[in-house]
Amino acid sequence: MNVVAYRPTPEEYSYTFGGRAPVAKVRPGTVLELFTEDCFAGRVRTVDDLPSVVCEFPFLNPVTGPFHVEGAEPGDTLALHFVSITPARDWAMSSTFPHFGALTATHTTAMLHPPLEERVWRYDLDLARGVAVYQARNSDYRVELPLDPMHGTVGVAPAAGEVKMTITPDAHGGNMDTPELRAGVTVYLGVNVEGGLFAIGDGHGRQGHGEVCGTALETAMNTVVVVELIKGVATPWPRMEDDLHLMSTGSARPLEDAYRVSQHDLVTWTSSLTGLDTLDAYQLISQAGEAPVGNVCDTNYTMVAKVAKSHLLGPDAYDAVHARLRALGAEYLSSR
Amino acid sequence: MNVVAYRPTPEEYSYTFGGRAPVAKVRPGTVLELFTEDCFAGRVRTVDDLPSVVCEFPFLNPVTGPFHVEGAEPGDTLALHFVSITPARDWAMSSTFPHFGALTATHTTAMLHPPLEERVWRYDLDLARGVAVYQARNSDYRVELPLDPMHGTVGVAPAAGEVKMTITPDAHGGNMDTPELRAGVTVYLGVNVEGGLFAIGDGHGRQGHGEVCGTALETAMNTVVVVELIKGVATPWPRMEDDLHLMSTGSARPLEDAYRVSQHDLVTWTSSLTGLDTLDAYQLISQAGEAPVGNVCDTNYTMVAKVAKSHLLGPDAYDAVHARLRALGAEYLSSR
Amino acid sequence: MNVVAYRPTPEEYSYTFGGRAPVAKVRPGTVLELFTEDCFAGRVRTVDDLPSVVCEFPFLNPVTGPFHVEGAEPGDTLALHFVSITPARDWAMSSTFPHFGALTATHTTAMLHPPLEERVWRYDLDLARGVAVYQARNSDYRVELPLDPMHGTVGVAPAAGEVKMTITPDAHGGNMDTPELRAGVTVYLGVNVEGGLFAIGDGHGRQGHGEVCGTALETAMNTVVVVELIKGVATPWPRMEDDLHLMSTGSARPLEDAYRVSQHDLVTWTSSLTGLDTLDAYQLISQAGEAPVGNVCDTNYTMVAKVAKSHLLGPDAYDAVHARLRALGAEYLSSR
Amino acid sequence: MNVVAYRPTPEEYSYTFGGRAPVAKVRPGTVLELFTEDCFAGRVRTVDDLPSVVCEFPFLNPVTGPFHVEGAEPGDTLALHFVSITPARDWAMSSTFPHFGALTATHTTAMLHPPLEERVWRYDLDLARGVAVYQARNSDYRVELPLDPMHGTVGVAPAAGEVKMTITPDAHGGNMDTPELRAGVTVYLGVNVEGGLFAIGDGHGRQGHGEVCGTALETAMNTVVVVELIKGVATPWPRMEDDLHLMSTGSARPLEDAYRVSQHDLVTWTSSLTGLDTLDAYQLISQAGEAPVGNVCDTNYTMVAKVAKSHLLGPDAYDAVHARLRALGAEYLSSR
Repeated sequence: MNVVAYRPTPEEYSYTFGGRAPVAKVRPGTVLELFTEDCFAGRVRTVDDLPSVVCEFPFLNPVTGPFHVEGAEPGDTLALHFVSITPARDWAMSSTFPHFGALTATHTTAMLHPPLEERVWRYDLDLARGVAVYQARNSDYRVELPLDPMHGTVGVAPAAGEVKMTITPDAHGGNMDTPELRAGVTVYLGVNVEGGLFAIGDGHGRQGHGEVCGTALETAMNTVVVVELIKGVATPWPRMEDDLHLMSTGSARPLEDAYRVSQHDLVTWTSSLTGLDTLDAYQLISQAGEAPVGNVCDTNYTMVAKVAKSHLLGPDAYDAVHARLRALGAEYLSSR
Repeated sequence: MNVVAYRPTPEEYSYTFGGRAPVAKVRPGTVLELFTEDCFAGRVRTVDDLPSVVCEFPFLNPVTGPFHVEGAEPGDTLALHFVSITPARDWAMSSTFPHFGALTATHTTAMLHPPLEERVWRYDLDLARGVAVYQARNSDYRVELPLDPMHGTVGVAPAAGEVKMTITPDAHGGNMDTPELRAGVTVYLGVNVEGGLFAIGDGHGRQGHGEVCGTALETAMNTVVVVELIKGVATPWPRMEDDLHLMSTGSARPLEDAYRVSQHDLVTWTSSLTGLDTLDAYQLISQAGEAPVGNVCDTNYTMVAKVAKSHLLGPDAYDAVHARLRALGAEYLSSR
Repeated sequence: MNVVAYRPTPEEYSYTFGGRAPVAKVRPGTVLELFTEDCFAGRVRTVDDLPSVVCEFPFLNPVTGPFHVEGAEPGDTLALHFVSITPARDWAMSSTFPHFGALTATHTTAMLHPPLEERVWRYDLDLARGVAVYQARNSDYRVELPLDPMHGTVGVAPAAGEVKMTITPDAHGGNMDTPELRAGVTVYLGVNVEGGLFAIGDGHGRQGHGEVCGTALETAMNTVVVVELIKGVATPWPRMEDDLHLMSTGSARPLEDAYRVSQHDLVTWTSSLTGLDTLDAYQLISQAGEAPVGNVCDTNYTMVAKVAKSHLLGPDAYDAVHARLRALGAEYLSSR
Repeated sequence: MNVVAYRPTPEEYSYTFGGRAPVAKVRPGTVLELFTEDCFAGRVRTVDDLPSVVCEFPFLNPVTGPFHVEGAEPGDTLALHFVSITPARDWAMSSTFPHFGALTATHTTAMLHPPLEERVWRYDLDLARGVAVYQARNSDYRVELPLDPMHGTVGVAPAAGEVKMTITPDAHGGNMDTPELRAGVTVYLGVNVEGGLFAIGDGHGRQGHGEVCGTALETAMNTVVVVELIKGVATPWPRMEDDLHLMSTGSARPLEDAYRVSQHDLVTWTSSLTGLDTLDAYQLISQAGEAPVGNVCDTNYTMVAKVAKSHLLGPDAYDAVHARLRALGAEYLSSR
């Protein structure tokens, strides 16, 4: 087992997908132990640290990477299996941010309202008990919420020579902000440039559906990922797989287009796996499919289309790479 | 216990909310045993019955009702507790329909494409085993899906003297097509006209998220509902409650507006229940909230905002009417 | 020439399309002299009359009518030729309104902002000089704007037994709020019910594109309309014609769907007039077509698709009814 | 007068904003004589040249540049005055393109329809008479349309290190595809990187509103631009000015957000020019403003907000730079 650990210095954080030289080359099959900083680049540490004061645009949402995967070429697919996602601190921060979020005027949903109040919340994380503590700012109200660690951001260098801020989700991945991206999940990303150049960041202790106020329980993460390369198979939009489900994503505006992209990809993907014709697959997904909301606050919105494998007869996706990586991850975990 | 049974004749079906005299008056506290026909008015019975041929616009999506609730006045809220929702047949039908659905050009997402093929699927329902059998039309592919019966349509007469086709969801309810509307759920609807004039229809054996092809497992239902009236309390958009969750709905276009309406209502509702100020409630819902998709195919799209009661400290919603109706429903069921 | 004058009493105002008995029957060919009240039902007369105080929902946007056109049946088209549209007062009112307008949170674009300030403006109208005077509320700034009188609202009873508030534009017409609806224009409306039941209201001294703050120069109007009936020809969405242009409308959300509907209708309409196949007509409209914005503030948004007749070879639309009504209107005007 | 001519070789075309070294440095005040190739990179020359065959993604929509403007720094504004825009050929090409355009399923408005037919049209341009000849493909139908030359694409390097394909319009400019960008217009672009790095392309012989089929009368252009630098004044979204009007742009999805951005910018801009408070400016623009549609087919949609200067009392925009550049352009033209 080839295990590589990497912890970036602040100077090594990336704030874009594309436009950056890789921080390292990795061979397919490598187990990567990564540290990721939170979306505030670690600068919001108390409820008095207003993000608009302590953070500086565009130095938001740093990612760890990019990593060059040896042998990856346009038309291939990267498989990133998330073995574990563990908060690296016993606290997480959340906040409103001026003109950002789903229930506020924004840069593009431009209105004449002044921004909502900028307010910061601090959550205590109890990893042993698996809970995060919400503490209201204007009352004594406290309540425990289950931890459900995930990464908001994972992606590769975009196609067509584009460089995108890490806060933007699109066909290359990016800031999809879906709670489905948990430990145990394999993410499939289409390769657009030599080496793929994937990066990971934006750890959340947990997140509601849509990330309605614009931020989740933002925290640094210690994350273990197995990197695999699938040659000669293209993936049009990011996909995910866990032991029980296949998932497609779509990131676009308006939100129905994100829904359309994700459902369209799941229909065509399952059609190809099952041998059902397109309309028969459309019908099956219409009845068996789920549609977990990713984000409704970022520069593109993200929807996930999801179906239980138990409803699909046919060969495993991507030649069963998920099962192999899952096994490798289990082996890694048992070896620690 | 005041139990009333009602089974409409085809002439008694309603195709609008508003604009119809009530079929009956009911007292608050009544247990209603209802029969509802499917969205095709029962005319699609084999895979050769194309809806565009056997159905006649606007005679689609018939509802059972409307019922006049004694004492209901504008500014009150109706509580409809769904005790049971049971398919009345051992089969259900689904179909594509020309220019209807999420992955096709429609009447308003107008494009130059010819319509997708109109195709019908028949599902065998096995109530004892709790499964529906999907059978592909162009292959031998068969797979069992769990039954999860629900009503796509429930609503009251709209405000401002409007009359809306039953296929439209809006602030009055209507064709929200959310799988969350299962047995065990209490629906809260704001009253706009004297008597409220609620009606119910569009039973689904199960439905995927968003009803992407435009139809679900359409079937007739035998449904038991307890009707209650909450005086002097207004409800701006339809809400739902089950034993574990509170839910708000929003129906609008584009889809992000449906999301905004539902999340906004859940934030303000939970703020009033918990005493949290608006921004503290916004933060709590942002981390604890869910966002099940209703429909992404109807004239308005529907989103649900949902939160576990366990995350909320404070008094029960609507003075705990859900628990009382739940108990009454259990009493009814044990008496049969 | 059959000339009929009608001036409604306040009790006779209609606030819906559909759901109302006609105020009068008119024969095709009739010249109607109508008075229409402003969208505030005449209750906002000074800058201290806040609409949210002096108006009462849903008694907004009264229309004059509905008129039953003798012989009109579903599948026919009404042609309403606007001979003249003349402000009935020497003042007009405009205002912001809480949670209404394009640059504010609204009922469905729901946000946590408090409403923008409600403020009223009064315009002096000088009909002789053809100008309206804008007077700022918070400074001495005054500027003259050209008068360009129009009706925001014209429509018929909707299909499928629906009843819609007059503020909603849709396939039946309604509150399209397009400045293109000037004197000299013929409006074509598809008939959905016996008699058609058309009504007119919401006069504007002038209006910007999109009616961005939600109101225009709202004023009462003396309007002359010639009514004609086109038997056996259906019109899917409201259309307009002036001496130089053909126009189609679309009312929907999001705004691109309003654009799609209007452009789609103009492509198929001009295809049928010119004999061009659909793709050739698509290309021609793509290069020759205009797209004046109607409203971006109402419950549906409205776009107009417009093309100069000089770019179209072929027979006149609707068998040249516009030219005939134009001549009749000129005759009427010269006879006064 | 400092006049510089530049004609790129095909190897010098740029396909992105950002991510490219400048092709030349220019001093403020320079008159640039540029050649721009058409959006097909000149590869579609007959109706048999299908773009999907002869063009290769992402080598679409080449721009001429980027040019480094000496002294330009983030926070400054570039003023580009278009002195003349002259078709460099006597023909132009237009086409449908698979899954591109407003009346077709696209990459993100994903649907199960096969693409519309790909078809190419060739227009003869008669510069002397100022007309372009439309020739139908499936009939003898021919009609002359007035020439109205414009550039679809003008922009600078984006903020935050981003690199965007030239087909995307956004706050940096890009492929706005507005017919308002004619000769006689000054474009204002906020500078994001040292030198600004502007580029120009996508000449259209004329274009309908929204570019509904996805392409206009695509042709190479000989274009003369005066370059000016406004120090210390930021411009949030591209703006335009002609002798009679001020214009703001917005590029976003859905289309109402493009409208909101453009109207919001025009309200705040005119507020600062006139001294009107925000709400008084909102009212004035609501009545006096226009809203020409740019594109409804690209990766973001574009709207323009426009107001006649005659309706605005107050100092000239950007310290009257438009008038100075207009005079310089006239001097240049008279000197040829």
